[in-house]
Amino acid sequence: MAKIVAENVKAHPALFEEEVQMWVYEEEVTIDEKSRHYDPNSPLCQGPQKLSALFNEIHENIKYLPGITLPKNVIANPSLVDAARDATLLVFVIPHQFISRICDTLQGNILPYARGISCTKGVDVSDKGIQLFSESIGARLGIYCGALSGANIATEIAQEKYSETTVAYDPPPVDSRQPSPAHSPSQSQVDLVAPNAEESKHKAVLKPLPIEYPALSHENVKKLFHRPYFHVRMVSDVAGVSLGGALKNVVALAAGFMDGLGWGDNAKAAVMRVGLLEMVKFGKHFFSASCRAQTFTEESCGMADVVTSCMGGRNFRCAKMAVERGMKIEEVEQQELNGQKLQGTSTAYEVHSYLKGQGMEHEFPLFTAVYNILEGKTKPEEIPELIEPKD
Amino acid sequence: MAKIVAENVKAHPALFEEEVQMWVYEEEVTIDEKSRHYDPNSPLCQGPQKLSALFNEIHENIKYLPGITLPKNVIANPSLVDAARDATLLVFVIPHQFISRICDTLQGNILPYARGISCTKGVDVSDKGIQLFSESIGARLGIYCGALSGANIATEIAQEKYSETTVAYDPPPVDSRQPSPAHSPSQSQVDLVAPNAEESKHKAVLKPLPIEYPALSHENVKKLFHRPYFHVRMVSDVAGVSLGGALKNVVALAAGFMDGLGWGDNAKAAVMRVGLLEMVKFGKHFFSASCRAQTFTEESCGMADVVTSCMGGRNFRCAKMAVERGMKIEEVEQQELNGQKLQGTSTAYEVHSYLKGQGMEHEFPLFTAVYNILEGKTKPEEIPELIEPKD
Repeated sequence: MAKIVAENVKAHPALFEEEVQMWVYEEEVTIDEKSRHYDPNSPLCQGPQKLSALFNEIHENIKYLPGITLPKNVIANPSLVDAARDATLLVFVIPHQFISRICDTLQGNILPYARGISCTKGVDVSDKGIQLFSESIGARLGIYCGALSGANIATEIAQEKYSETTVAYDPPPVDSRQPSPAHSPSQSQVDLVAPNAEESKHKAVLKPLPIEYPALSHENVKKLFHRPYFHVRMVSDVAGVSLGGALKNVVALAAGFMDGLGWGDNAKAAVMRVGLLEMVKFGKHFFSASCRAQTFTEESCGMADVVTSCMGGRNFRCAKMAVERGMKIEEVEQQELNGQKLQGTSTAYEVHSYLKGQGMEHEFPLFTAVYNILEGKTKPEEIPELIEPKD
Repeated sequence: MAKIVAENVKAHPALFEEEVQMWVYEEEVTIDEKSRHYDPNSPLCQGPQKLSALFNEIHENIKYLPGITLPKNVIANPSLVDAARDATLLVFVIPHQFISRICDTLQGNILPYARGISCTKGVDVSDKGIQLFSESIGARLGIYCGALSGANIATEIAQEKYSETTVAYDPPPVDSRQPSPAHSPSQSQVDLVAPNAEESKHKAVLKPLPIEYPALSHENVKKLFHRPYFHVRMVSDVAGVSLGGALKNVVALAAGFMDGLGWGDNAKAAVMRVGLLEMVKFGKHFFSASCRAQTFTEESCGMADVVTSCMGGRNFRCAKMAVERGMKIEEVEQQELNGQKLQGTSTAYEVHSYLKGQGMEHEFPLFTAVYNILEGKTKPEEIPELIEPKD
């Protein structure tokens, strides 16, 4: 994501500042002797280095994205507060379990009229109900936060292999008041139209900017993310985009169960289709105002991401192995993922917990079947009967 | 299809007659010594047998669906006219190149109030324009003809592996006149409501039936095709169902080109999504009155069939090989299919010829790119640029 944004801010100098500040969680790394960066005479190779400092020397994250050179205008910064200071656009590309802590750190340290885009997929289910991560971020920071999701495997994008994504951005109506440092941040104060909108610059990160701040249009958000190898479609349905990325993993488990049974491509395509329609139903039922069926059925964050996830994603593969080997999925996680947990199983449990609370398990027979299979209460072979339409 | 229909007519004796007449093109077959049916003392194994007679003895089509026992109420009949005589429901499961000849034979030899369901996918492009095969059948026979299409690989269905399908059936408004043998067949005379609708029987094939003839509801059509392992969704969009099965093969070629380049699952899912939306656009533009986006994006005949075809169908595999081996697709057809032609290539040419005639090539950049790749005018690598949205 840093690569894409950095390429785009360079391509649109009238619109964005050139530097992209990238917060990295600091750690020590060592350049391996087999690395193309290894040079016994280089000071970088005399023992452990700070990840951020090394990145700013060689423009590569040797630990998390080895082999990919990032543009020089991406600056790694180990200080979250410093990286985000004065940024008008914050792009969140973090595992969901860190959102809460990161927002705590950012609170009070960002521009009140900053905007967020969450690339973290999924929903947060608690006693209080169900919340999108984009909503959690927005609420905690008092800013508007959109979402980006699609059939996007990071390493393929880094290699500039063609893909698509969906960006949802739909801030509340423009408020024409001027922002001032005294403003307490709130969504309605964020979108300010400036007379010199064309000349003002959005910044992907850092440094002071004019107090007059242009509204951020779909067109300009698109310019931050769209590349010849990474096609962006803009929508307004933040809920649909956020949900697609989470719920598709539950569908991928179901598809894996089918494939594990050796039932062939017809069966797999059938549960993908049924799953996609349960995703639509879930969105429309629980996020009705904003959620559109087409976000799931026509966009990269929906249908295309379901397809990718059911072709070879981790959830799909582990579910398939579980059936083939007659094992519980936790055992497969142990064997295949070093005990790392699948996103699909936790989402299946969260979705089920929410549906049960709403008394709506039977309205979502595939999601419920996946939960019951994970719980050992249902067999994969029963899926067709369970999802058979009753009309 | 005969298996499914035969199981269902037995399950609904109040609605359907028990016997299913299946026309087979007569040929001579010999039971192989390795066959489970081989018995040196059996008269069936003393040289070549007629396919129809052998089928009626052993209830298996040893040439075209070996290993699958069909229900005893399927009767193979080498006479097309005899098989269709007095049938009120005609199910067409034939390669499209035979439709014309078969309709010539049936003309004047079927009940004027018979109904058809076409399982033959695709469209017929000629100087006169574009016509669905269901429309061709209906027009030639003077009957109403619906369509069945879905992610349905025949051998998987025969083995009762779970799958889904879509049946489109939407006859013109009911005409309450009584049919009489003197009626010239026309669509408006077909749908006749009988007072004893519940008691009258639809016949899948053969034998006289009451002159009072009930309208055929979605519910009853569904009963003819729905099985626990073959889930049917009924829709009214005959154009969408017919087009889905044809156009998906063009999309499968595009997906194969991506995979052949080694561009990964993101790229493949992206062209599948773009292709699905071009299918929607094609349907809505050229069959606007009846065609619904959801038929493509939400039904088995659309999204699910695209998925199956792009996972491992012949069109996908041959397109992939063509790129990998640097060959023309005709050469791959020669090598891999013994010179048999792919459905996707002929559909791509037909679709292109129609779009060109309409001056609309640029409105369908993926379909056009596939055609140009087949023609050697475009390289697969150019697809992303060609389908990049211009907005």
